[in-house]
Amino acid sequence: MMSESGFDSLPYLMRVEGCLSERLGAGGLARSDLVRYEARLSARLARLQDEHDRNRLPMLRLPTRSDDLAALRSLANRFRRDMADVVVLGTGGSSLGARTLCALPGAGGPRLHFLDNIDPDGIETVLARIDPARTGYLVVSKSGSTAETLCQFAIVFDHWRQAATGREAADHFVAITVPDASPLRRAAARLGFPVLDHDPAVGGRFSILSLVGLLPAFIHGVDGRALREGAALVLDETLSAASALDAPPAAGAALLVGLAEGRGRSQSVLMPYIDVLFPFALWFRQLWAESLGKNGKGLTPIAARGAVDQHSQLQLYLDGPADKVVTMIQAAMGGTGRRIGPDWAEADSDLAYLGGRTMGDLMAAEQRATAETLIKRGHPVRVFEIDALSARTLGGLLMHFMLETVFAAELLGVDPFDQPAVEEGKVLAREYLREQARR
Amino acid sequence: MMSESGFDSLPYLMRVEGCLSERLGAGGLARSDLVRYEARLSARLARLQDEHDRNRLPMLRLPTRSDDLAALRSLANRFRRDMADVVVLGTGGSSLGARTLCALPGAGGPRLHFLDNIDPDGIETVLARIDPARTGYLVVSKSGSTAETLCQFAIVFDHWRQAATGREAADHFVAITVPDASPLRRAAARLGFPVLDHDPAVGGRFSILSLVGLLPAFIHGVDGRALREGAALVLDETLSAASALDAPPAAGAALLVGLAEGRGRSQSVLMPYIDVLFPFALWFRQLWAESLGKNGKGLTPIAARGAVDQHSQLQLYLDGPADKVVTMIQAAMGGTGRRIGPDWAEADSDLAYLGGRTMGDLMAAEQRATAETLIKRGHPVRVFEIDALSARTLGGLLMHFMLETVFAAELLGVDPFDQPAVEEGKVLAREYLREQARR
Repeated sequence: MMSESGFDSLPYLMRVEGCLSERLGAGGLARSDLVRYEARLSARLARLQDEHDRNRLPMLRLPTRSDDLAALRSLANRFRRDMADVVVLGTGGSSLGARTLCALPGAGGPRLHFLDNIDPDGIETVLARIDPARTGYLVVSKSGSTAETLCQFAIVFDHWRQAATGREAADHFVAITVPDASPLRRAAARLGFPVLDHDPAVGGRFSILSLVGLLPAFIHGVDGRALREGAALVLDETLSAASALDAPPAAGAALLVGLAEGRGRSQSVLMPYIDVLFPFALWFRQLWAESLGKNGKGLTPIAARGAVDQHSQLQLYLDGPADKVVTMIQAAMGGTGRRIGPDWAEADSDLAYLGGRTMGDLMAAEQRATAETLIKRGHPVRVFEIDALSARTLGGLLMHFMLETVFAAELLGVDPFDQPAVEEGKVLAREYLREQARR
Repeated sequence: MMSESGFDSLPYLMRVEGCLSERLGAGGLARSDLVRYEARLSARLARLQDEHDRNRLPMLRLPTRSDDLAALRSLANRFRRDMADVVVLGTGGSSLGARTLCALPGAGGPRLHFLDNIDPDGIETVLARIDPARTGYLVVSKSGSTAETLCQFAIVFDHWRQAATGREAADHFVAITVPDASPLRRAAARLGFPVLDHDPAVGGRFSILSLVGLLPAFIHGVDGRALREGAALVLDETLSAASALDAPPAAGAALLVGLAEGRGRSQSVLMPYIDVLFPFALWFRQLWAESLGKNGKGLTPIAARGAVDQHSQLQLYLDGPADKVVTMIQAAMGGTGRRIGPDWAEADSDLAYLGGRTMGDLMAAEQRATAETLIKRGHPVRVFEIDALSARTLGGLLMHFMLETVFAAELLGVDPFDQPAVEEGKVLAREYLREQARR
């Protein structure tokens, strides 16, 4: 593990030397610190292999699934052809995955809007921009009973019905929900629009490679097959690792949990130096928070943006409490982008350092300098390097972080697949609403 | 302090009972815990009063400043009249404040684009959307030598020059920077466009009520005068408080530092239940991180969105480590927004709780339920209530958080106005760029 030369078969290279004592000093982990986790990681890996082989953990089957692609693509193409706008209704895992994928450059297609909240002004902003007669709606709720999504849906459906008189709901609406009876499924049956099945065994935050992520991705023009291919590479490499610590997702989990338990690094910053990966960082934030935050355990996930947050959060990371690990993601940007003409440097010697450089050169230099500076001050830094962002690369990163989360949960002794604590608030909110209705 | 009946003269009500032991139990603070901070807060308040009266802290003079409004409004009106798009170039405090204000509903006006990063693809996305002949550019860098902003500027200026042949730079470009010589100021002089002065004594993250925030706000059609008026109310109330703990910003600082130092609550979540306040939460994140994160001190600021993050972060907040304080901001949304027709409830008894309710009712119920649930589990919650979001209310919140930051810095023993740690990385990035150029 931890080799500098990297994982040639993966769509990324994970550099961890900035977390190890040989580079970082006392704040870093020794290789022996990691070996301590090896037995538990290996046991989890063996279980993963078994879960994969017996199809006990369906998210592990998604990367190699292809039987659903033609239908998804065909439905997406109908929306791409007929609709000027597509509104995705859903919250949490029903929204963050799709947003992550649809941040990739698309291919023409309708404008996408994500309604993930119940702010009355927020929904008006979206409704004002669309023509219901030329709008498609994806209504996504795993349970089919998410209060926010049902509220959005009732309001959006009434808005559509009033405006698009005489049109068929089946041409405009599609729901994604589990096969069980639910308010959403019954509404779809009553109102006559199709429902696609959400696999009950795939949790919302692990659903990005299912139709929940892929249908919006295809509508946007992102290659869902390539996403899965990238994910499959990482899954294969992990499942076939000779030793758990050879697999980057398991090694990453050992590092992060090791730094948390042994070095007080309880906050985990994910800082992509690529604009379109900021939604990915928010997706990671849910994945990490809901999967690990239980029984008093859990690391705080923090989404940051390189280089922007160097002008916002870096002061705290460098000189605040020594409680953070920073994971950067960088593309090979050196030499890419527009070039700053040499005339700028000629006109002003203070611009000499920029003259003839490209914007990508500056980004690359800043990422490297920020990593160096953090390490010099004793703060652990991990870097993911990719060649360029593509659906395949993104798919690889998605699978890396999902698996890393599963391994980290094992080390923390929590179940990554439940979120028991949030039920209480949902029940209470309904109670307050009923109370209000009686007034 | 801490009264339930609130601060009638302020544009918000700060409810803190969810942080106090009488409500929260052992995890909360006793009033005696807060009194411990009173002497230091009172001393800081006296110094604030003195700084205000002698004009030693110019950010305190911004709320009552009006001499600059006519010129800003006039420049903004020219951009509103002549431009289809306006691009704001700048990063950190040169961008977050303007974004916060321009998230308020505007009044027609040009489309605004914020270029805050140096991702080569990110800038192409913006350049592809604008017609340089009908675009205005605000180039904002306090020092006039921010590498990212200069890089953006050189590239954007060349793009404009090539596309908008024969036009005057003075009609399209405006810079905002300190009066000292700098690459940006020299470039403006050389290329013939105007420069507006950034007050050297107002730090970027405290500049939102200066021209840095107000010029973009006026361009967007947000009432800059009302923003300042709201801020002035909070400043007045604070400066004239009989005792420091009577002033909400000082009381808030005592609470947060008290919960951090005495109860291990080292992470501070700001969670507005209002969509357009999410940029405000990001502005707060910079304010708090750069002002307090030094000498090993500092609380981690976290920006969250209600109700969305109930489906992403709440599991961690409820059942993860007991290290967070949640500050919610809510408007009186009950009864606002579109109503869910009673037919939805008639058609499906599982929708009974929603039938006849408005979207705002649901938001209000969820905010209340989430606060209750956190408190029941022993996690401190503070709630800001506002009637409705307006420029005046937002101005009040901005001033509250700026003053709270100054008071919190006093209690932590750090200087809120510097950010010494980030210089090293900037120097190193330039070195790497020069290295690369020599290759």
